Amino acid sequence: MTSAATPAYRRLTVEERRGQLLHAALELFAHRAPEDVSLDDVAEAAGVSRPLVYRYFPGGKQQLYEAALRSSADALNRCFAEPPTGPPTERLGRVLDRYLAFVDEHGTGFNALLRGGSVAETSRTSAIVDEVRRAAAEQILVHLGAERPGPRFGMLVRTWIAAVEAASLIWLDEGKRPPARELRDWLVDHLVALLAATAARDEETAEIVKRLLAQETPEGPVATLARRVVPVLGEAAHLL
Amino acid sequence: MTSAATPAYRRLTVEERRGQLLHAALELFAHRAPEDVSLDDVAEAAGVSRPLVYRYFPGGKQQLYEAALRSSADALNRCFAEPPTGPPTERLGRVLDRYLAFVDEHGTGFNALLRGGSVAETSRTSAIVDEVRRAAAEQILVHLGAERPGPRFGMLVRTWIAAVEAASLIWLDEGKRPPARELRDWLVDHLVALLAATAARDEETAEIVKRLLAQETPEGPVATLARRVVPVLGEAAHLL
Repeated sequence: MTSAATPAYRRLTVEERRGQLLHAALELFAHRAPEDVSLDDVAEAAGVSRPLVYRYFPGGKQQLYEAALRSSADALNRCFAEPPTGPPTERLGRVLDRYLAFVDEHGTGFNALLRGGSVAETSRTSAIVDEVRRAAAEQILVHLGAERPGPRFGMLVRTWIAAVEAASLIWLDEGKRPPARELRDWLVDHLVALLAATAARDEETAEIVKRLLAQETPEGPVATLARRVVPVLGEAAHLL
Repeated sequence: MTSAATPAYRRLTVEERRGQLLHAALELFAHRAPEDVSLDDVAEAAGVSRPLVYRYFPGGKQQLYEAALRSSADALNRCFAEPPTGPPTERLGRVLDRYLAFVDEHGTGFNALLRGGSVAETSRTSAIVDEVRRAAAEQILVHLGAERPGPRFGMLVRTWIAAVEAASLIWLDEGKRPPARELRDWLVDHLVALLAATAARDEETAEIVKRLLAQETPEGPVATLARRVVPVLGEAAHLL
């Protein structure tokens, strides 16, 4: 890691210095498990002394880790924001593109954080991760026009979010194959399929799906999936 | 917790004593987060002294926790075993019934383990949890006749397992609503829907689905879901 030292004659403000240290920490935690990052690494990456890091983060590595996590959580929350216009599956596709770009950039840290068992994991770090999951669920519910979901529909959304997380970790494991765009399309299909299956048994979901379908286009992901599923259903003709 | 003390005149063998302590620990860890279980609790529940617990588990609470987790992992692996006969979705339903019964019985501990952030969580406990996930994936692949899955199908199975875990945690959060049988049916539907959506784009999955459908019956879960999904697809007629 080359030094990102600021020339000595340029005096940073407290906020700038804090931001610089946090930036260096974020970079390191994105690419290594927390146990493989030392305060010396952060100091070196920021081109400052170890005591200076302690002055800004008296809680040491754990405090830096939590601050970096907080900052990542905010970045993720921002990438969930999407204007409520256009076909819902296309909005979802754009959010997933941003999310997968985040996973791509923060691979090792994302993995360490969600796999669990890291020394830096505490009930505070788990709470931050849960907050991101909640924010993701809320955004989806807003776009689906279901801010106050019944239990079945709420479970559907939270379960799909867990599936997205799991798929992201597997994607990292598999050397980021398939390409992000294919994974994105599959995750959209996954939600559409789950909505259809749940609508088959749950009134509320059926109503939501009806409203969603009215906003989709014949060229969009739902139409494409529906056309491709028809031959699969053909194989089930003996059951119908 | 009432004492499960053995009458003093009955001398337990080393294995019996170890089993008794482990049993007491399992009970406690099933119903409380690891940080809320002390060695004194285990000693009291087993009706023995604290030094005796240490004699059998010199690593103290962490060792007991890991032994209890090991034993739970073995119990879960056993509940995945299912004869390879009959419609695959019905086999899956029976496995899910046993799995949800396990979740029901071990609710608090299951929750603490999978939520993360517990003081007792280490890379060793995470490895045991991952081993259970792998065993579940292997069983599913055997039943689907896909022991060596391609990347897309492998991701499908692992992602669905993560969805089952997430749904179980939500189910515990929601006071075990809906009833376990309904949750079981929904989880089966979820897999069937995901298989159908993935078969729409992936050759290998399409072949597997074809073989699966040939083993299903007109009264089984796939047929029921297919019949119920038809009206949902009707709402998408304008897209086709």
